[in-house]
Amino acid sequence: MKNVVILGATGLVGEEVLKILEQRNFPVKELFLFASERSEGKSVIYKTDEVEIVSEYEELIQKADIVFGCLDAPFAREIVPKFRGHAVVIDNSNAFRMSADVPLVVPEVNPEKIKEHTGIIANPNCSTIQMVVPLYPLHQAAGIKRIIVSTYQSVSGMGRDAVDELQYEIECLGLGQTIAKEEASALLHPIGGNIIPQIGEFEGSGYTSEEMKMVNETRKIFSDDTIAVTATCVRIPVFVGHSEVVSVELRKPMSAAQACTLMKDAPGVTLLEDPQAYPMPAQVKGTDAVFVGRVRQDAAFENGLAMWLVADNLRKGAALNAVQIAELLV
Amino acid sequence: MKNVVILGATGLVGEEVLKILEQRNFPVKELFLFASERSEGKSVIYKTDEVEIVSEYEELIQKADIVFGCLDAPFAREIVPKFRGHAVVIDNSNAFRMSADVPLVVPEVNPEKIKEHTGIIANPNCSTIQMVVPLYPLHQAAGIKRIIVSTYQSVSGMGRDAVDELQYEIECLGLGQTIAKEEASALLHPIGGNIIPQIGEFEGSGYTSEEMKMVNETRKIFSDDTIAVTATCVRIPVFVGHSEVVSVELRKPMSAAQACTLMKDAPGVTLLEDPQAYPMPAQVKGTDAVFVGRVRQDAAFENGLAMWLVADNLRKGAALNAVQIAELLV
Repeated sequence: MKNVVILGATGLVGEEVLKILEQRNFPVKELFLFASERSEGKSVIYKTDEVEIVSEYEELIQKADIVFGCLDAPFAREIVPKFRGHAVVIDNSNAFRMSADVPLVVPEVNPEKIKEHTGIIANPNCSTIQMVVPLYPLHQAAGIKRIIVSTYQSVSGMGRDAVDELQYEIECLGLGQTIAKEEASALLHPIGGNIIPQIGEFEGSGYTSEEMKMVNETRKIFSDDTIAVTATCVRIPVFVGHSEVVSVELRKPMSAAQACTLMKDAPGVTLLEDPQAYPMPAQVKGTDAVFVGRVRQDAAFENGLAMWLVADNLRKGAALNAVQIAELLV
Repeated sequence: MKNVVILGATGLVGEEVLKILEQRNFPVKELFLFASERSEGKSVIYKTDEVEIVSEYEELIQKADIVFGCLDAPFAREIVPKFRGHAVVIDNSNAFRMSADVPLVVPEVNPEKIKEHTGIIANPNCSTIQMVVPLYPLHQAAGIKRIIVSTYQSVSGMGRDAVDELQYEIECLGLGQTIAKEEASALLHPIGGNIIPQIGEFEGSGYTSEEMKMVNETRKIFSDDTIAVTATCVRIPVFVGHSEVVSVELRKPMSAAQACTLMKDAPGVTLLEDPQAYPMPAQVKGTDAVFVGRVRQDAAFENGLAMWLVADNLRKGAALNAVQIAELLV
């Protein structure tokens, strides 16, 4: 039994961690919930207990065994290191993922890396997790040479304010009102009836931080720096569920049927085998798998496959993956 | 001055043709509008004239000089051939595009093909048009080897019923109501807060008809059957404006800066040169250009470029391209 701390307990991912700990009956001895002062004094129900939310974390450092870091990167950079050495932090932010002494773990892919932790284990980016889970069996069998991925990412990946913003904008559109740019604050532009091909900040190469996460994290998780990845990450007016179009070129030939056989048996994957079937974001909310459909030969590469991936970005893309890591720890 | 017939005058594309003929002051002698019986007796204003909509086309065959075919493929197959030999039909449907004796024309790319017509000139698919216009100068300079394209297509590409369906579903979501699958009729599934990775019917290869249009039409327009194209076409909850993520591998090296120089001067292209700028569908309604942004080296290919394309699918993707063809004819 472990003392569990959730940092950022009232955010979308923190709430989902709490839900999943309960659903999976994680061996919680005592539960501590930290959030900003806005949530001070509030409490939530975990199983049959009422747990108060605190806005000071110093007292939790000595008590914690396992910490779920669900803070934005700037806060994670400040707070997470203080728990290091006292507890194991499973951090969902971008702050530590590429540090050499921080394993970046997807339990279906590289669970053995957990052993190498020095107090922090990083949870990868949502878009990366749902891509590497189904691609891993293909990589093991035939070696991935390159990946071209286009994402269709829901607003919940940006947090609660973005979800509220989309809801507000949908109400405006439903009433026939247009949305002023000034009203978009959580996202960069209005998202109702629109899409935004920018997630994160631009880096020097013309790629965004979200896109570079998909490049760098994929290489780190697969322990293969030779994999070439081009990502284009796009925000769309969907509440929950990220979708991805993936073209993958393998080093050896593989038919779509062979790929399906491999993915069908892969942990964490739900394959829709009918080549005319496909998952959609409206169906995945609250589910755990990465759903794979439309597996077919990629017409542009000799050893290429194309496919369509959908997952609940708050669960497998964030909270569930973190809880799975914690389960491996205990 | 020409006698002009619009077949399917009350559909989204037919209405847009009418608007563009007026905006561009096309030399119309007399205008004839044909639509289904549902529109019988209605009339529309063209410039200062009231033009009645008729639901019989037989009398128009002898009068027509130029015909804009804005019918769905089954109706186009029945009606368009009856005008052949009497007038030139610029047909927007999929019925004749791949016929050897029908030129498939994008005026910025292959205007010379118009001369080869035998009564029908085909207007390409919306997704294809907006891709080939900016890629053409790159193809001329360095030869395109392969294209990987993911689309983000608005519901207006499916017609007025799909637009109404999205509006209804947005009203439901705005009121906090869920959408029953049975309510989706114009589209295959509910589209409000959802995306659908199927446009058209599935063909044997696992690709949809919309995706195969992008493959086959691109090769025909560029007169190059060696170009490899992988397309994944996705319907999203946007009213007007198709977006595309395009990765292109060239036969010769080309920097992003060189590509920008070529595209900047290309007819029909509006390039956002700032590598951090990008067009979005909410901005393009009623515009004529193909907007290009996020031009950058493609990280997965040696001679690769990645970019982001947006255009008004009813205008450059359909009606405008057709009127431009008519302008070349007269």
